[in-house]
Amino acid sequence: MKLNRDQELVCGINTVNEIIKIRPDSVTNLLTGSKKGKRIQELEKLAKNNNIEIAAQDSSFFSKNFSGMAHQSVAIICNKRLEENESFLDKIIKKYNLLLLILENITDPHNVGACIRSAAAAGVDAVIVPKNRSCHLTPTVRKISSGGAELIPFIVVTNIVRTLNKLQASGVTVYGTDMEASKAHNEITYDNKSALIIGSEDKGLKRLTLENCNEIIKVSMPGKIESLNASVSAGIMLFQIINQKQTRV
Amino acid sequence: MKLNRDQELVCGINTVNEIIKIRPDSVTNLLTGSKKGKRIQELEKLAKNNNIEIAAQDSSFFSKNFSGMAHQSVAIICNKRLEENESFLDKIIKKYNLLLLILENITDPHNVGACIRSAAAAGVDAVIVPKNRSCHLTPTVRKISSGGAELIPFIVVTNIVRTLNKLQASGVTVYGTDMEASKAHNEITYDNKSALIIGSEDKGLKRLTLENCNEIIKVSMPGKIESLNASVSAGIMLFQIINQKQTRV
Repeated sequence: MKLNRDQELVCGINTVNEIIKIRPDSVTNLLTGSKKGKRIQELEKLAKNNNIEIAAQDSSFFSKNFSGMAHQSVAIICNKRLEENESFLDKIIKKYNLLLLILENITDPHNVGACIRSAAAAGVDAVIVPKNRSCHLTPTVRKISSGGAELIPFIVVTNIVRTLNKLQASGVTVYGTDMEASKAHNEITYDNKSALIIGSEDKGLKRLTLENCNEIIKVSMPGKIESLNASVSAGIMLFQIINQKQTRV
Repeated sequence: MKLNRDQELVCGINTVNEIIKIRPDSVTNLLTGSKKGKRIQELEKLAKNNNIEIAAQDSSFFSKNFSGMAHQSVAIICNKRLEENESFLDKIIKKYNLLLLILENITDPHNVGACIRSAAAAGVDAVIVPKNRSCHLTPTVRKISSGGAELIPFIVVTNIVRTLNKLQASGVTVYGTDMEASKAHNEITYDNKSALIIGSEDKGLKRLTLENCNEIIKVSMPGKIESLNASVSAGIMLFQIINQKQTRV
């Protein structure tokens, strides 16, 4: 089986299901193993209805292509998901209600995928990452995002600080996150136009990035360790913001 | 290198650091690769101070033993982390303030590890799982929990419903989670003695488990997908509970 340069393999029942539903024309083949539970049978039906070719693969195909992943013996050949460039921001920046999630230098695809999933569930308008030293929209990210990556624009920018300044010039308040922040995430009244920026697990946000945020916040932790997975932090803060917005309406 | 039956290999800088700090006597060897950044040099110093033997390993050792994991070329040989049995509950059940996290049939070690990490950061008193069809305290769980698994008691019970009933008999309110719940997680006034129970990502909580909860709640999601990673859901709800408790004090 040959993939052309615009195509990739994506695995997992939920993700395959979402991609076929949201972007059926981007999928050419559904690949399934020999064991076919009810959910895979449903996927085959969905594929048939969308003129997607179904092919059987043996277990070595899945273990070879999706080592260490919960592939569930199902995958598709589909077009790569397009990333947006900075000019995409101009299309959304004037919205009255805007919520953006910016991931600075998060390199673990599991974390980026989980952040996109939470962002999609929270109704975030776009996820923004820097061009360098950051994980982009890989097949693993698409898989882990459980369909989130299909729904949410993924914007790649050259320079994060310049992007923050551009957002601020359009009235967006930028909330940075830092372990040393003096304000807790639940003590803030968030703006209608908000951008939350999360740094790498190791080092957090860069100094220059922190200096260009409007507010620095953290999740207060009463426990014995002061450390959360980046995607859990992002989820806690995003849902704090949207719950507050819902209460205000 | 031979491990005895009470020992296991655990990898990752943060986790190794926490285990040596919290439980130095449980660690016999520190294993490091050839590249030694500042943090690994610090680990070697810490190991030396605790009479832990340091041994060099080549990159194939790490890729063979920690396939697909962010091992960071550092690992330890240490005692397995002891799980507690049901009788441990009797020790904590009389506390005036009690917060428990119960994971029913979560089988992905990444999810269990991330839940334990959030639980430790939130100051949860114990994590409870059923004996069967559930991931226990494996080396991957310890690694992903970033030290959380070293701090928080991990209780294995035979029957979840019986455990819920036992908790309720001691005045604990049990909050179940379900996509179809009519109440949102931020509309509830949580009890001083609370247990949050999360089900598997695929199927959620079992019917009988749901019937034995005092309240059923969910995270309301305004976005286009209604699905969060189990550990993100757990994090959002746990921090809602503890933030509310902190505000009340």
